[in-house]
Amino acid sequence: MEHRNLEACFTPALYPFHENRDAIVVVIDVLRATSSICAAFENGVVSIIPVAEEAEALDYKKRGYMVAAERDGFVLDFADFGNSPFNFAPEKVRGKTIVYSTTNGTKVMNMTSAAYLVTIGSYLNITALSRLLMEQKRDVILLCAGWKNKINIEDTLCAGAFADKLLSAGNLFSTDCDSVKIALDLWYQANDNLLAYIEKSAQRSRLKDKKLDDCLEFCHTMDVTVKIPVLRDGKLVDISNVNLLTI
Amino acid sequence: MEHRNLEACFTPALYPFHENRDAIVVVIDVLRATSSICAAFENGVVSIIPVAEEAEALDYKKRGYMVAAERDGFVLDFADFGNSPFNFAPEKVRGKTIVYSTTNGTKVMNMTSAAYLVTIGSYLNITALSRLLMEQKRDVILLCAGWKNKINIEDTLCAGAFADKLLSAGNLFSTDCDSVKIALDLWYQANDNLLAYIEKSAQRSRLKDKKLDDCLEFCHTMDVTVKIPVLRDGKLVDISNVNLLTI
Repeated sequence: MEHRNLEACFTPALYPFHENRDAIVVVIDVLRATSSICAAFENGVVSIIPVAEEAEALDYKKRGYMVAAERDGFVLDFADFGNSPFNFAPEKVRGKTIVYSTTNGTKVMNMTSAAYLVTIGSYLNITALSRLLMEQKRDVILLCAGWKNKINIEDTLCAGAFADKLLSAGNLFSTDCDSVKIALDLWYQANDNLLAYIEKSAQRSRLKDKKLDDCLEFCHTMDVTVKIPVLRDGKLVDISNVNLLTI
Repeated sequence: MEHRNLEACFTPALYPFHENRDAIVVVIDVLRATSSICAAFENGVVSIIPVAEEAEALDYKKRGYMVAAERDGFVLDFADFGNSPFNFAPEKVRGKTIVYSTTNGTKVMNMTSAAYLVTIGSYLNITALSRLLMEQKRDVILLCAGWKNKINIEDTLCAGAFADKLLSAGNLFSTDCDSVKIALDLWYQANDNLLAYIEKSAQRSRLKDKKLDDCLEFCHTMDVTVKIPVLRDGKLVDISNVNLLTI
């Protein structure tokens, strides 16, 4: 596969119209699932088991796993902690396997499992992950987690940031996907002052209302980590040290 | 209903997540269905019957109706003409009822029929239709026809143009819909030179490849008509002369 096509899919509900089993999927849930996952790997987590349903998370908890789980910004009562990246601190997660369930993000990871490779993208690992995408001769789908199947600003913008990196890299990628072009133009409009732009986002207001917006700046910080979490046999593991030719 | 909420839905596949039966829906398919429908009413058509399936269009043709029908830009062989607004000329359509079937637009009209009112929007009738929306005390959903359930640039931009008009009108409307904000910012970026911006659109390339792009400028011309086509009992009729309190 020499020609590499770049697509953006703004919500999971549109994934069936973009699906391409030969592609690498980048799941993006900036506020906060994929940012938190990148932070957890940076802080030494060994693996993360994403689960969509609350009951499944509870079942893991009963079996002794540490569980991070929230719905609509609220920590589930049986969970050890919620979805802030600051919860995944080194002293809590180093050397551990964690079970993780969120409103949007983990559902998306599970629906993409038929793709060639499912990766976890955020500003925190944007350069490292983009480099991997450039090295692989594969189509790429930037898949935004959105909010309950609707489009959100923060994931669309981050898709634009990834598109900017990938399309600027020589002629490795091309696109005829209007969603990529929309995301790019939003990114060009916002990237001078990303945090000011994010004030428009409905999720930013939701987090503020629940006093969960302390992580906003962190979640929009580039290159905090070189970790590249990918979905492998139902678990997220880091492949930043793996020989890329063997994945 | 005093507070009026404005939402944008970028493809029909997302409509179930935006649906609101009390709302007025504005169906937008700039290239070319809703532009052509507005042109047809300006040119004196009495009513238009939108049909989704080719077989249904053929059935109407056999019963003596004039049929406009295309798929992927190609006129169906039994149809009288295709989807260019220039086909709906006064000498052809004045005083007639026409059956109309297109790739995306007519399917969308049919899926929205449970809404309070379904209207046909384009640049051609943007001011007249926006005025009607301001006069009604109703939520509004700007519904882009897109392309085969994917998002397209031209309909997203036109949704931004409608949002700009509606949100600029005093405090009639408010929004917490990220899609509205994305459409607005694209519109602000593009409206200085709309035709240059539309060069990016995949549909623009499709029309060019098929030499069907002669209508591009016309479809991006504001206020060619004051007609307001709405769906009423399965037919599109003009309500620009109807007492708004009675609709």
